[in-house]
Amino acid sequence: MSENNQLYDEKRYELIVERLKNRGVELIDIAEITYSLQAPYLSNLTLEICMEHVERVIKKREAQHAILVGIELDMLAEEGKISEPLQTILMKDYGLFGVDEILALSIVNVYGSIGLTNFGYVDKNKPGIMKKLDNKVSNDGHCHTFLDDIVGAIAAAAASSVAHKYAESL
Amino acid sequence: MSENNQLYDEKRYELIVERLKNRGVELIDIAEITYSLQAPYLSNLTLEICMEHVERVIKKREAQHAILVGIELDMLAEEGKISEPLQTILMKDYGLFGVDEILALSIVNVYGSIGLTNFGYVDKNKPGIMKKLDNKVSNDGHCHTFLDDIVGAIAAAAASSVAHKYAESL
Amino acid sequence: MSENNQLYDEKRYELIVERLKNRGVELIDIAEITYSLQAPYLSNLTLEICMEHVERVIKKREAQHAILVGIELDMLAEEGKISEPLQTILMKDYGLFGVDEILALSIVNVYGSIGLTNFGYVDKNKPGIMKKLDNKVSNDGHCHTFLDDIVGAIAAAAASSVAHKYAESL
Amino acid sequence: MSENNQLYDEKRYELIVERLKNRGVELIDIAEITYSLQAPYLSNLTLEICMEHVERVIKKREAQHAILVGIELDMLAEEGKISEPLQTILMKDYGLFGVDEILALSIVNVYGSIGLTNFGYVDKNKPGIMKKLDNKVSNDGHCHTFLDDIVGAIAAAAASSVAHKYAESL
Repeated sequence: MSENNQLYDEKRYELIVERLKNRGVELIDIAEITYSLQAPYLSNLTLEICMEHVERVIKKREAQHAILVGIELDMLAEEGKISEPLQTILMKDYGLFGVDEILALSIVNVYGSIGLTNFGYVDKNKPGIMKKLDNKVSNDGHCHTFLDDIVGAIAAAAASSVAHKYAESL
Repeated sequence: MSENNQLYDEKRYELIVERLKNRGVELIDIAEITYSLQAPYLSNLTLEICMEHVERVIKKREAQHAILVGIELDMLAEEGKISEPLQTILMKDYGLFGVDEILALSIVNVYGSIGLTNFGYVDKNKPGIMKKLDNKVSNDGHCHTFLDDIVGAIAAAAASSVAHKYAESL
Repeated sequence: MSENNQLYDEKRYELIVERLKNRGVELIDIAEITYSLQAPYLSNLTLEICMEHVERVIKKREAQHAILVGIELDMLAEEGKISEPLQTILMKDYGLFGVDEILALSIVNVYGSIGLTNFGYVDKNKPGIMKKLDNKVSNDGHCHTFLDDIVGAIAAAAASSVAHKYAESL
Repeated sequence: MSENNQLYDEKRYELIVERLKNRGVELIDIAEITYSLQAPYLSNLTLEICMEHVERVIKKREAQHAILVGIELDMLAEEGKISEPLQTILMKDYGLFGVDEILALSIVNVYGSIGLTNFGYVDKNKPGIMKKLDNKVSNDGHCHTFLDDIVGAIAAAAASSVAHKYAESL
């Protein structure tokens, strides 16, 4: 049987990075959120280590699919190609719409359930790039309903990945 | 404060029913799957009762949002409006794509975790309308990557709802 | 067929309230967290309304089961009845243990995926009673590994319930 | 910083294998379920490959924690050490109790959401060892409320792991 690198899809990695960049998100922006989440617990943590784990998350097929779907929906909403009432729900980032959270959950879950807490925390606090994405929406008619949560989910998953790697065993 | 019917959005119910119909799914098709799942455990179960619970699931806002997103993605894929590689992933119903399952999970979860088993079971067995949707895809170039799982999720959630209502307390 | 109140188990409600009380948690403590989460969005929100929704969450069978299991594990750990290594994992509230989060998720999910964010937020911030539970652990040898997350999950689910009831439709 | 093998906890692996054995489950029993799930899609699949992936799942920390908690609850119930009503719920494997499914979900999720379908399928069909565990319960007063779902979840997660490794890229 021909083997692929299990769960990872490296070929698609560059495409995902490019897609995020086009939507205004650099990996370093996400790594900064991961750093802010884990630095209080790991005194020797560096931004480089966080960057490494962000990249690792984005190489996972499950994360890639969630990212592709979320960005696609944001872009189609900006182009007005979604039928109502979903078009308005997405453009207004309607508070009772939970599909963005559920999509983010599929990214977070791959690194275990400890990521849930960090995801919820940054999704509410909106540090760094997450705040910028949020403001852009109100000002310029952009739609970042999904990207917002996706960025938070990648950052939280990378934080879990760091924690699982460096935390002391019991 | 003005009150809405909690968690339910009845206004949107008709729209969702219409949208499912346009995609080839009648509520009675879903109720039949629910009936097949619960009939072995409840001797007096009728198709009417199952129909009532299918309707109840579709009145839930969480389910409505998942249904709207799933059907939208299927339709946009059929129209060729999704960018690659997602367009091909959706048209081919790529086996390692799990966003359809995660979206379905958000429907199932609203009626508790006992629905997980029934969802997985029908998603693999593809009874009734689910088989028809599957065949249509191969034959006519339709895309039912999401609708498939959504139908299974509504049927499983309705089965949970029936079980929670009629099961004996311990 | 004999009907129970769907998804609700009112008989068991009093038992759950008692069990929480014995572990140091009054419903009003949880309602205060819910209030702090939703007050910024709903100007007329009262603590009474939050209390009503906390009670509603605790009447749900899915929530009751998660609460019973979580409290049981905390108590058995305090009594030293759990076999190793789980006994130590629970007593030390080991950071990489995620079963508490996953159990909490089953409570949150019943009110839809918008609760995820609030759950993560309070799980990290530990407002009010959650902080007290946390401190008790370090000082008195109590085990609140599960109760902590359960309280946060009930508060977050009640916040979702409030949001779904009073939020404006789009 | 001292590094552990990320997400994996090999030291604890032997303990988990032993614990499963004591409860009547050999890894090969689980590998057989994985084989039955994936063989239809991969003509060169062997039981050895399935065994390898079952081992891989059991090396994951998230899976280990869920296994430890589930088996502990089953054993404490057999010993009559759980307080009511949970004691009876566990001994009777009450159908509306969903904590076993949610715990299983945390194992399945680590290999992405495609595992959901396989988990639900085997949880209903109960192939091989799962049927034996089920029968033992009725005959000998054993409690396998959690072990049942845990075995299904490990098998389904291993099937996802196989699928992600050998499936053709799109």
